[in-house]
Amino acid sequence: MMIVDDVENGSLGPYQDRPRTFPNMRSKPYTPLIFRILMGINVRVLVILLLLGFGYVFYIGASTSPIIVFVFSVCIISFLLSIYLTKWVLSKDEGPPEMAQISEAIRDGAEGFFRTQYGTISKMAILLALVILGIYLFRSTTPQQESSGIGRVTSAYITVAAFLLGALCSGVAGYVGMWVSVRANVRVSSAARRSAREALQVAVRAGGFSALVVVGMAVIGIAILYATFYVWLGVDSPGSMKVTDLPLLLVGYGFGASFVALFAQLGGGIYTKAADVGADLVGKVEQGIPEDDPRNPAVIADLVGDNVGDCAARGADLFESIAAEIISAMILGGTMAQRCKIEDPSGFILFPLVVHSFDLVISSIGILSIRSTRDSSVKAPIEDPMAILQKGYSVTIVLAVLTFGGSTRWLLYTEQAPSAWLNFALCGLVGIITAYVFVWITKYYTDYKHEPVRTLALSSSTGHGTNIIAGVSLGLESTALPVLVISVSIISAFWLGHTSGLVDETGSPNGGLFGTAVATMGMLSTAAYILTMDMFGPIADNAGGIVEMSQQPESVREITDVLDAVGNTTKATTKGFAIGSAALASFLLFSAYMDEVASFANESFKQVDIAIPEVFVGGLLGSMLIFLFSAWACSAVGRTAQEVVKEVRRQFIERPGIMDYKEKPDYGRCVAIVASASLREMIKPGALAIISPIVVGFLFRVLGHYTGHPLLGAKVVAAMLMFATVSGILMALFLNTAGGAWDNAKKFIETGALGGKGSDSHKAAITGDTVGDPFKDTAGPSLHVLIKMLATITLVMAPVFL
Amino acid sequence: MMIVDDVENGSLGPYQDRPRTFPNMRSKPYTPLIFRILMGINVRVLVILLLLGFGYVFYIGASTSPIIVFVFSVCIISFLLSIYLTKWVLSKDEGPPEMAQISEAIRDGAEGFFRTQYGTISKMAILLALVILGIYLFRSTTPQQESSGIGRVTSAYITVAAFLLGALCSGVAGYVGMWVSVRANVRVSSAARRSAREALQVAVRAGGFSALVVVGMAVIGIAILYATFYVWLGVDSPGSMKVTDLPLLLVGYGFGASFVALFAQLGGGIYTKAADVGADLVGKVEQGIPEDDPRNPAVIADLVGDNVGDCAARGADLFESIAAEIISAMILGGTMAQRCKIEDPSGFILFPLVVHSFDLVISSIGILSIRSTRDSSVKAPIEDPMAILQKGYSVTIVLAVLTFGGSTRWLLYTEQAPSAWLNFALCGLVGIITAYVFVWITKYYTDYKHEPVRTLALSSSTGHGTNIIAGVSLGLESTALPVLVISVSIISAFWLGHTSGLVDETGSPNGGLFGTAVATMGMLSTAAYILTMDMFGPIADNAGGIVEMSQQPESVREITDVLDAVGNTTKATTKGFAIGSAALASFLLFSAYMDEVASFANESFKQVDIAIPEVFVGGLLGSMLIFLFSAWACSAVGRTAQEVVKEVRRQFIERPGIMDYKEKPDYGRCVAIVASASLREMIKPGALAIISPIVVGFLFRVLGHYTGHPLLGAKVVAAMLMFATVSGILMALFLNTAGGAWDNAKKFIETGALGGKGSDSHKAAITGDTVGDPFKDTAGPSLHVLIKMLATITLVMAPVFL
Repeated sequence: MMIVDDVENGSLGPYQDRPRTFPNMRSKPYTPLIFRILMGINVRVLVILLLLGFGYVFYIGASTSPIIVFVFSVCIISFLLSIYLTKWVLSKDEGPPEMAQISEAIRDGAEGFFRTQYGTISKMAILLALVILGIYLFRSTTPQQESSGIGRVTSAYITVAAFLLGALCSGVAGYVGMWVSVRANVRVSSAARRSAREALQVAVRAGGFSALVVVGMAVIGIAILYATFYVWLGVDSPGSMKVTDLPLLLVGYGFGASFVALFAQLGGGIYTKAADVGADLVGKVEQGIPEDDPRNPAVIADLVGDNVGDCAARGADLFESIAAEIISAMILGGTMAQRCKIEDPSGFILFPLVVHSFDLVISSIGILSIRSTRDSSVKAPIEDPMAILQKGYSVTIVLAVLTFGGSTRWLLYTEQAPSAWLNFALCGLVGIITAYVFVWITKYYTDYKHEPVRTLALSSSTGHGTNIIAGVSLGLESTALPVLVISVSIISAFWLGHTSGLVDETGSPNGGLFGTAVATMGMLSTAAYILTMDMFGPIADNAGGIVEMSQQPESVREITDVLDAVGNTTKATTKGFAIGSAALASFLLFSAYMDEVASFANESFKQVDIAIPEVFVGGLLGSMLIFLFSAWACSAVGRTAQEVVKEVRRQFIERPGIMDYKEKPDYGRCVAIVASASLREMIKPGALAIISPIVVGFLFRVLGHYTGHPLLGAKVVAAMLMFATVSGILMALFLNTAGGAWDNAKKFIETGALGGKGSDSHKAAITGDTVGDPFKDTAGPSLHVLIKMLATITLVMAPVFL
Repeated sequence: MMIVDDVENGSLGPYQDRPRTFPNMRSKPYTPLIFRILMGINVRVLVILLLLGFGYVFYIGASTSPIIVFVFSVCIISFLLSIYLTKWVLSKDEGPPEMAQISEAIRDGAEGFFRTQYGTISKMAILLALVILGIYLFRSTTPQQESSGIGRVTSAYITVAAFLLGALCSGVAGYVGMWVSVRANVRVSSAARRSAREALQVAVRAGGFSALVVVGMAVIGIAILYATFYVWLGVDSPGSMKVTDLPLLLVGYGFGASFVALFAQLGGGIYTKAADVGADLVGKVEQGIPEDDPRNPAVIADLVGDNVGDCAARGADLFESIAAEIISAMILGGTMAQRCKIEDPSGFILFPLVVHSFDLVISSIGILSIRSTRDSSVKAPIEDPMAILQKGYSVTIVLAVLTFGGSTRWLLYTEQAPSAWLNFALCGLVGIITAYVFVWITKYYTDYKHEPVRTLALSSSTGHGTNIIAGVSLGLESTALPVLVISVSIISAFWLGHTSGLVDETGSPNGGLFGTAVATMGMLSTAAYILTMDMFGPIADNAGGIVEMSQQPESVREITDVLDAVGNTTKATTKGFAIGSAALASFLLFSAYMDEVASFANESFKQVDIAIPEVFVGGLLGSMLIFLFSAWACSAVGRTAQEVVKEVRRQFIERPGIMDYKEKPDYGRCVAIVASASLREMIKPGALAIISPIVVGFLFRVLGHYTGHPLLGAKVVAAMLMFATVSGILMALFLNTAGGAWDNAKKFIETGALGGKGSDSHKAAITGDTVGDPFKDTAGPSLHVLIKMLATITLVMAPVFL
């Protein structure tokens, strides 16, 4: 059989040039360049530098607006708080040496991957920066810029600088997420030996640290850029730029952030799930050993994956979500203030920064409200950690409603429309409610307390095939309710804004879009707490892995198992939250795009008419982009997992002693395979996402030029963006929910239902779980980032399409 | 464990009220009422009636246009040819009694299901007809109607009559497809005992019979309606309706056709795949017996499924495709002729009818070109049936290019733009090429001679999970190339039409949309031959089943196996063809909708601006509709298959003699379970598809009314339609290709690759095949129908949205 041989050889072929040795990852702890430079400086010099920095920040803040000073102060306080949280977490012990050893191996693997991954990403970012520079140097300047005296060259450097700063901050956000999780995991394991409550608290505070840093950095980065441009360009002084045009200069920051987040999420997502699927397929299904068993050669790779995939990637993801959402809301606020001739527009422009400053404050209160019981020496019975986290969330959300109302009154009050702020406060409430409902719907479809997952588990009893069919149907079906909720929120927020009383010169209402923007901010107004809960998940998961691998007693395992299960739920619900906010934000992102195009082209751009064939084709291509991107993200995991499966099988065959703990498996080999494969595999989908809108926009711009269609390129890209957003939301909902449901259907069977562990139903359920892994942790979350990255890339690349 | 018990009881609960006896299906052969009435009439009376009918038809044809007379003549000749083909097929012997017995059981099952299914469908159709009547009686009349003197009541009756006629014809098309397949299957089996070539010929001619009837009926039905309205309403005489407005009266016919097709496809699709999946899961996976083994209690249900799912449903599906495409092209032709003030618009309006008349002629030639070898007594070695079918297709396609060119010169020549016909001929060529490329792409992704299926098969070697991940990725990825091809064809056909020289009063070009319409017709210009190849598949499949069940010698099986494999390929490629034409047709269907709305509302309706929040929400809801519909279609199969699995398992346990051929399985029980379940399950997705656009349109019409947005309902529905079309195309491509690829990956392994039959890879591949079954034969094809039904329902229900 020639054909068969070919195929088999083909599968082995790429294997031979893979590294056969354990790369020297444990040689020295890795610290990124920027931290090394900082640490190299004399402490006194550092303090002086820091003080100078603060001085500069407050000087430009004071020259810009008191609001900016407020934002700076809150951010700096929250950074101080996050330093306190780190110190608190790091002061906990690392447990017995076997735990510390495992933790070190995980840390080395994670840091090694992070270094290589971000090395690749930064090279790509610099390349892209050069491309952007070239494009901006050769484009025509906008009329506003001409009148304000910003030349083509200045504008090019501003955009590139913003892009690079955004990329850098996003990278740091990712690093911080991973940095704390690889240190907190073992401390949670160790604390679990003492009490559940303490373990919970360590995990929450570690998560809280990175959440505060991520959100704080997004806010302060934008605020510094804004204030610097304000002072430097002499905004609002006669003859120069108007403050309402200023936010458009920030889009580069958002694009930089989403560029890095996309690759971080793709690389990390492929890593974590390839390791997980590979470990499960051989370990659980073929050999029948439990999850995270030390005999499984892929177990360390799996644990590393939690850190690089869930922590680092989610940090970068949330960072770019917040940055993109703040910038687009600022653009919309500016445009509206200008159209409505509001006397002091700075309130409308800076509103998102204030909302997220309050987010930092109230989330900190929420995080700190989770305390260990007073008498930690008495071993208390395990409380439901979910209830504790929920209590913290309730505290946060109540405070969010209050501070949001206050902020609207403070910043959005204008004499032109005295009751407008009330309408906008209601928009915020719409957003907060939407977030709540989204979380509830996600829970309904992914929690085994409810009907859908029960039905899915039941379908496992008739085989692998019916399990998959049921899971796919469940996922597809679960898109319906969120879409209905989003539809209602978009329309109601739009109408609340529309009827706010803000009118333009001709007297027609103009606040609709800003209303949806405010609703989005409402939805994200507890982002830091949500991110804390999200980070909690992988830390707890890792802690469980360390406990299992270091063979701790059953009672310790029980505690980490409970925490892990709660982590799964919070992870799933925060995904619902993330996609909900992406859906709501998408609408303002493309409104911002249309404003930007209109301002560049000095031509009205108010419609995207899909009855024009080219525009419709743009839409078709946009939806197709989502399908192709998801395909490549999933197949990357599948391919890498197959390599892991073969490696693990090989080790079990070549080292038969592994199963009796007589021989140590070669963990490093699996880590190396997964790392190099995921770096290789992240390029294709990432490049697709970045290149295709540029190519499509440029092609149709040329076509439009020859057929006498002005703005054709921009319109086609707009349709591409909108269709991609819609398909992306649906696809992400499908992938996330199906994956979560499969995971929990398996967990439900593991509780003893339908035959319990080891039964045929359980095997079918594991197949479902395996399929769901790349769905929910690679393709789904990458789509969140993709949706927003498409919006920011079109904003930055607009000159190419015109 | 309370929870577990609940679930288990829940699964058994609905079981108990299912019929426990074999329903008396074999009592008497079933003939639909209309045929029984016809057969009850004296032959002489019948001849006189027929002659009178012909006389009427030709009278109104002659009063309308010579083109109509031509169309009538061709249709009647092709009906005569189809009668010859039936006689030829029926003259073949039914083989030994054991074959005839099995065939009878299949026929009874299929006819019984058909009766019940179409009983339900006709009740729903009558209900819907009353709703339409009510809506039309209470709506306002259009200005054109007022000027032409068609009152509200006349217009209501016209629409309802057209709807019912469309529904009836669609039902007959389905019945014909099934009627011939349940008779041809056993004759193909019997012929296979003699020679492969003869078996092939019988299957092709049976398929050709129903293809000619289906296409001919679509064409003649529209032509009769058109001519009747023309004569009755005195079109083109002073003071009455203009001929260019006439096609709008036909939309009811298209909606009737798609309404029936939707339920036929859903019910049939659920039936066939639930039986197939259920039979495979227990028979192949658990018991390890081959496909179509007589010991499998679900085998008869599986064979019945081929007939009701593939033959009846595909007949109704293609009927509505052609009807919808003809009507929308007629509307566009009329609008364009009016705008461009073409003197004799009838050529532009009737062009689609002529194209399909030629389709009948050239496809007949193609079908008849497949002959048995002269010396049938000598057993010739098996030729490649695919090559024979391809040769017939090549003949057809060459003739199509020629006749298409001739038709454009004949009908689309106008002195206003002397070279326009040439541009339109090129549009037709674009369509024909698109069809070819689509078929090629489908083959590339689903044939195991190519890379993708090989890779998929390889992924089975690492387990069920990686097989599913790889299949899903393959399906998602396979959407990219078709979308690119469709994009290029839409734009190039539009530009060919645009530059055809046809201009309106203001001198701006106006032929673009008609160009895409002509491309669609080009794509469908060989529809009858394609349908023949498609029908060939399930007939060959059934013949193989009968051969296997009646335990024929190996040599006979070999022949039917080869035919079956070819049938699989033709089935997959015709699906590519169907979705390609749906994609191309979609763009004209919504242009027709916009024309219709503009004509009803007497207001310009040229833009669908998705930057308006409500319109965007409409798009979001449209895409969501596709996801939800697919979910419900798949889960219906999953649920029904689970019932089959349980029943088959029960029979194997209660009748242990089955495995040794000592006890006969209760085939009828499985047939009854599948039939009642699929009737129950088809309602939910079908109702969703019909009700949701109406509800959405009505809600937004009311919202628009209160917020001062004219036409808001119509615009939102337009966006819903367009987004649903785009998502539907992508989803259908995904589902069809993934399903086909899984099927062939399994077949590839069965050729002996990667361990061959019975290996672990094979088991994983069967899981993939099982998952792919509802994808490719239930949800996917239903989406084709759904896309077009959405377009026709919005056309008919437009008064609700205004």
